[in-house]
Amino acid sequence: MIRTAAVVGTGLIGTSTGLALSRRGVQVHLLDADESAARVAAARGAGTLEPPAAPVDLAVIAVPPTRVAQVLVEQQGRGLARSYTDVASVKSATALAFAGHAVHRPSYVGGHPMAGSERSGPQAARAELFEGRPWVLTPGPETSSTALNGVLAAVALCGAVPVVMEPNAHDRAVALVSHAPHLVAALMAARLGDASRETLGLTGQGARDVIRVAGGDPTLWTDIIRSNAQAVGEVLGELAKDLEALAQALHTLETSGGAVGGSDLGSGGGRGADSEGALASVRELLLRGRDGWAAVYEPGAASGTG
Amino acid sequence: MIRTAAVVGTGLIGTSTGLALSRRGVQVHLLDADESAARVAAARGAGTLEPPAAPVDLAVIAVPPTRVAQVLVEQQGRGLARSYTDVASVKSATALAFAGHAVHRPSYVGGHPMAGSERSGPQAARAELFEGRPWVLTPGPETSSTALNGVLAAVALCGAVPVVMEPNAHDRAVALVSHAPHLVAALMAARLGDASRETLGLTGQGARDVIRVAGGDPTLWTDIIRSNAQAVGEVLGELAKDLEALAQALHTLETSGGAVGGSDLGSGGGRGADSEGALASVRELLLRGRDGWAAVYEPGAASGTG
Repeated sequence: MIRTAAVVGTGLIGTSTGLALSRRGVQVHLLDADESAARVAAARGAGTLEPPAAPVDLAVIAVPPTRVAQVLVEQQGRGLARSYTDVASVKSATALAFAGHAVHRPSYVGGHPMAGSERSGPQAARAELFEGRPWVLTPGPETSSTALNGVLAAVALCGAVPVVMEPNAHDRAVALVSHAPHLVAALMAARLGDASRETLGLTGQGARDVIRVAGGDPTLWTDIIRSNAQAVGEVLGELAKDLEALAQALHTLETSGGAVGGSDLGSGGGRGADSEGALASVRELLLRGRDGWAAVYEPGAASGTG
Repeated sequence: MIRTAAVVGTGLIGTSTGLALSRRGVQVHLLDADESAARVAAARGAGTLEPPAAPVDLAVIAVPPTRVAQVLVEQQGRGLARSYTDVASVKSATALAFAGHAVHRPSYVGGHPMAGSERSGPQAARAELFEGRPWVLTPGPETSSTALNGVLAAVALCGAVPVVMEPNAHDRAVALVSHAPHLVAALMAARLGDASRETLGLTGQGARDVIRVAGGDPTLWTDIIRSNAQAVGEVLGELAKDLEALAQALHTLETSGGAVGGSDLGSGGGRGADSEGALASVRELLLRGRDGWAAVYEPGAASGTG
């Protein structure tokens, strides 16, 4: 169990953690270089602005990925806590730039709660943010059981589900299920930014959902993407290949008259082989898309929905 | 006003139209080459399977885009209705392949209700599907006032908002706000289809929203994309340019060590100019994405959220 905690960084995730832990009776101390953010978090009930009189059971370092190593070493140096975790959305030592910092490994367990919002800051925080969500932990061979159990207790108090992963596997996974989708949403949203008012008036729930996460904080997301550049770049490379094939197929349909062809898909009807191949290519991408959709939305069903 | 109507094609849109019109007291006749679909629609209360004894006031041709011209000419030839509309998601004569068919123009008004679902078929239909949604109409110089007013009455009975547009402008608009977002969702979903169960377990609401529409019917969407190949291709070309620039920036960050650089964005800290430029490029895309998000989600606010 933990009785005292510190939250360093009172943004959305830090403040939500403070709210969740405070609600369960943990004495939470809030620290933030931005004093106004810390005051908002305290006013919302996430904890106290008073510094702890003795080392707390657990410090949650809730700062952007590129800041974690430096802040962690600083707080370990001043003895803020017995155990430490962070909430950065990348977890490998490379991504977190641990090489240049003397991190004390036994007292640290990397963490990443898989929860968020397109809104940011302490105002957007909610005690329920983590309920039922995965919270990835990346203990290493040097991690003490005190540190691991302290973090597991905090995750349980937040109502989240702990998932232990190897740091590099985590970073590849979130590149695919979080960082690349964020960039795809931003790419599409960027195109809509150029649209006329009349065109935007036709926007439906479909496009709104596709771009929703693009409302997230550009500064935070620049930091996240930069920290996971290699893994995200690999996913984008695969996406670019599929996009290129799709664009080529549409070009073929446009120039071969496939777009104004016969009435039934696949029935020939005077279209050329190029056009048939292009149609098959579009359809194959859409079928793969639906299989991916089903893997996420209907994980219990058998694969192969096409 | 209209007192009688026919719905040709009892999929999601046709059946929803039938439900909405029937609820408002219109006598609706249902026609579908797939008799079982028509029976489901009738059982749900969308109309009767009895053929009309005399021409109805309005026939709604609710078949896929590549089928519209042929079905429209067939039904005009047998005198099904006094006026005709369709619900295809493309509207130019080229996209609908009108060139090869003797469409009677005065009695026809092109239509496109901007409503849908990732589910399809008469089972997914709802009378409320169109409430408050834009319903694009594309009358031409030959359109009779009888036809235009018949369609306007039907749109009003469905609770939708009529929007008159020029057909080519409509097709370019929906390429941007509907067809390209659908393909972007499918491209991202296709990548998730290859993921392990552990990775998929980390998928949050953000990625779920990005890919939601990829659950749509691949056959219908192949037809839609094919019919609007040129306009969709232009949007994808722009997307591909941005994606390429983004992938290049990530590659630069990865190889220049920008990913493990200093602690503050834009502070230099030993990174090279290449890396700074790459970071600026990522950030610029995310800022443009947020501007596009704001144009859709906060249309009343001033532009430039970055």
